[in-house]
Amino acid sequence: MGGVRRAVRGPRRPARAPGARPRHGSALTWPGGSDPDDGAGQRPGDPGDLLDGADDEGPELVHRRALGPHDHVVGTGDVLGRRHPVDPGDRLGDLGRLADLGLDQDVGLHGHRGSFGAVRGPAHATGRARGPEGRVRQNGVMEPSAGRPDDVSVLTVGELGEFGLIDRVRRIIGSDPRVLIGPGDDAAQVATRDGHVLVTTDLLIENRHFRRDWSTAAEVGRKAAACNLSDINAMGGIATALTIGLGAPASLPVAWAEEFTRGFVSECDLVGAQVVGGDVTAAEVVVVAVTAIGDAPRPVRRAGALPGDVVAVAGTLGLAGAGFAALSRGFRSPRAAVDAHRVPHPPYAAGPQAAAAGATSLVDVSDGLLADLGHVARASGVRIELESSRLTVPEAVVTVGEALGRDPVSFVLTGGDDYALAATFSAETPLPDGWTQIGRVSDGEAAVLVDGSPYDGDPGHQHFR
Amino acid sequence: MGGVRRAVRGPRRPARAPGARPRHGSALTWPGGSDPDDGAGQRPGDPGDLLDGADDEGPELVHRRALGPHDHVVGTGDVLGRRHPVDPGDRLGDLGRLADLGLDQDVGLHGHRGSFGAVRGPAHATGRARGPEGRVRQNGVMEPSAGRPDDVSVLTVGELGEFGLIDRVRRIIGSDPRVLIGPGDDAAQVATRDGHVLVTTDLLIENRHFRRDWSTAAEVGRKAAACNLSDINAMGGIATALTIGLGAPASLPVAWAEEFTRGFVSECDLVGAQVVGGDVTAAEVVVVAVTAIGDAPRPVRRAGALPGDVVAVAGTLGLAGAGFAALSRGFRSPRAAVDAHRVPHPPYAAGPQAAAAGATSLVDVSDGLLADLGHVARASGVRIELESSRLTVPEAVVTVGEALGRDPVSFVLTGGDDYALAATFSAETPLPDGWTQIGRVSDGEAAVLVDGSPYDGDPGHQHFR
Repeated sequence: MGGVRRAVRGPRRPARAPGARPRHGSALTWPGGSDPDDGAGQRPGDPGDLLDGADDEGPELVHRRALGPHDHVVGTGDVLGRRHPVDPGDRLGDLGRLADLGLDQDVGLHGHRGSFGAVRGPAHATGRARGPEGRVRQNGVMEPSAGRPDDVSVLTVGELGEFGLIDRVRRIIGSDPRVLIGPGDDAAQVATRDGHVLVTTDLLIENRHFRRDWSTAAEVGRKAAACNLSDINAMGGIATALTIGLGAPASLPVAWAEEFTRGFVSECDLVGAQVVGGDVTAAEVVVVAVTAIGDAPRPVRRAGALPGDVVAVAGTLGLAGAGFAALSRGFRSPRAAVDAHRVPHPPYAAGPQAAAAGATSLVDVSDGLLADLGHVARASGVRIELESSRLTVPEAVVTVGEALGRDPVSFVLTGGDDYALAATFSAETPLPDGWTQIGRVSDGEAAVLVDGSPYDGDPGHQHFR
Repeated sequence: MGGVRRAVRGPRRPARAPGARPRHGSALTWPGGSDPDDGAGQRPGDPGDLLDGADDEGPELVHRRALGPHDHVVGTGDVLGRRHPVDPGDRLGDLGRLADLGLDQDVGLHGHRGSFGAVRGPAHATGRARGPEGRVRQNGVMEPSAGRPDDVSVLTVGELGEFGLIDRVRRIIGSDPRVLIGPGDDAAQVATRDGHVLVTTDLLIENRHFRRDWSTAAEVGRKAAACNLSDINAMGGIATALTIGLGAPASLPVAWAEEFTRGFVSECDLVGAQVVGGDVTAAEVVVVAVTAIGDAPRPVRRAGALPGDVVAVAGTLGLAGAGFAALSRGFRSPRAAVDAHRVPHPPYAAGPQAAAAGATSLVDVSDGLLADLGHVARASGVRIELESSRLTVPEAVVTVGEALGRDPVSFVLTGGDDYALAATFSAETPLPDGWTQIGRVSDGEAAVLVDGSPYDGDPGHQHFR
């Protein structure tokens, strides 16, 4: 392979400054007006770029010495040590639930099952140890971004908690005028060349959001699609296209991946959405990353409820939570409940119907009725008053409640994963088919009351105030 | 909590049939024309839904007995046993690369690093054992979807390989007329209410696609954004909005997540794209799921190259692959190379410029120049002939090649992760700034030739034929 032109060229940017603001911070424009330096232009390499030259990076454990063709310098111990086994109590019994960056603007409203807050950073084999104050210390070695040479307390994700992390990430993300609806709702609305589109994403991790011994592959596929389709539904929209990122262990039966895909596609068929692309990679447990895009002529947000409005729900409440409780105790029945945990049944027509009827606010019940109406109350600056006598308690929920010694209504009020819808309508609006009034909106401090009081019943896996 | 109306209600669908085609297979329509049964309508529960009633599911290990309030039936051993440690040799040393469902229609063109094909299903603790024929057998217990009661050979994902799996998944997904460009290109193009939008997704797993001891958090963030922005670039489009799904161990320093986000956002700033939403969840290693949407007035596909066209590239080739090779041998230099592996520098202006100039085909170089031009050759049904004398070999690539005893040109031809662009233009088209001719398109069997012959140089981590 002769005759090759060799140029002394480095990368086109003057120096690696990851995280730094870009030199040209403006948006790319269509050809004619763009930065000419943003093409393939390159610049002479740094003289320090020679092999074994000076390396001004932070502390490294990797040896630097003359590189010969038979060198094998990298040890694997560091990387092995960097893996973080999670408290089995959490990993096994506590199926996590999704938290959208946009969805949970209230830090600490309740403890998500499997959330970061419930998985407090264990000491592990990477040189960290718990200090007397309960914080995780680390020695800084092999911690590229921290760059601390000595022992120092470092706040972990487990200590900060999921909502604290979301809050910090959202502050970094900022906002943009082309984002018509950004983080803080069920889905974002983004301006396109021609109009706008809704976008939402969820990440599901095996043994946190689903278990392969609790659910079939098809059920996992249906649920993975459903929770994203529901986010579009909760904007009054209809999903049109979804992508799947699938991480899978090498030992995963191909039949599992195929059944997963069939389940996913069959759920998408319920709204006429299409899987348009994806990504497959190896992972140690099954990882499912789903993004849905959709359309809504008039997206309905969480903010918008007005005093005097009617509060209504569409779909079933409490079944999935009761099913989770039953499965957690080792039972596979009652079927209606455990099946609802495995595959939710979002009322896909109800979102667009509510939007068309002029709903003033709309949210899906993924975290629990009180939690999600709490989002509406705070976003709208109103009080929401529910009447428990108007709540429908499915028979299977009654059965589970009685068997477990729990108030069945607690599942209806606090159980998640049903992906029902809750909305507010002006009192003059006839409720669309499938919607049932459960309360009213009133003036007052943002809160959700049940029969006139803050709910203090059995919180189950969630904690309300 | 008295006065609750209790209804005997099951889920609205008659029976759980996950994976079955839906009853109403048509798309949801806007209110007025939709299926009235798709709202909150419910039907009487199955009498079998009572707790501890008949359960006609497949074999289970979980006991079924009377459920009392103090029962704790679920054992954790099964789930522990279901986790699948992957061959450390793969996990540690072999950084995987992304494969889009749409991107890699050619099964077995080359072995992706870290792909399923390289991670052949190890025997593990879930009751499986390697049979004499080399296939993984399983006993069917706790394998919900397989439903096999006895030992039987079950094909695993590791045995089928990544591209075989992608092929099967794509067959299940099918197609839809509203999907203007579906799986099989760098990004999909989907019709919206008002026009169309590009969508692409990638899933990155710690210790497969990045290592926290090789890259800073900001670098991981930049790369995670870059590989998705590049997919939009490779359609001649500009990304407008991205979502992030972040899975993180509880022990992850918050500073890591923040730096990751800053890096991600700073890369998005290069094209003016905005992070519009996301999802945060706990995981055992860092998992990053990214979806990008974007606009292109005239998306340029892989199919479209014509005999007589000029083949050209924009951006740098070989640096990231050489950097990976250096890092794999334990070195952190030459900087230009290892930095290119950590943070690619896609030529973001070059995609829209190529589209505006009338490029007949366009692809990004994520898998390697020969591999990605192979996609173009097959999609277009043409032969692509490269002239090695036209290739630019960066100085750092020469240095790594000499130190490792590898032909530096092999990095330029087969190294991935640079996210440069390759395109074809009609011979009459003046190449836009930043584009360099490297060959021509000719009639003939779909193939990529170098100096008139199939490339048989050092394949590095990839295998060409």
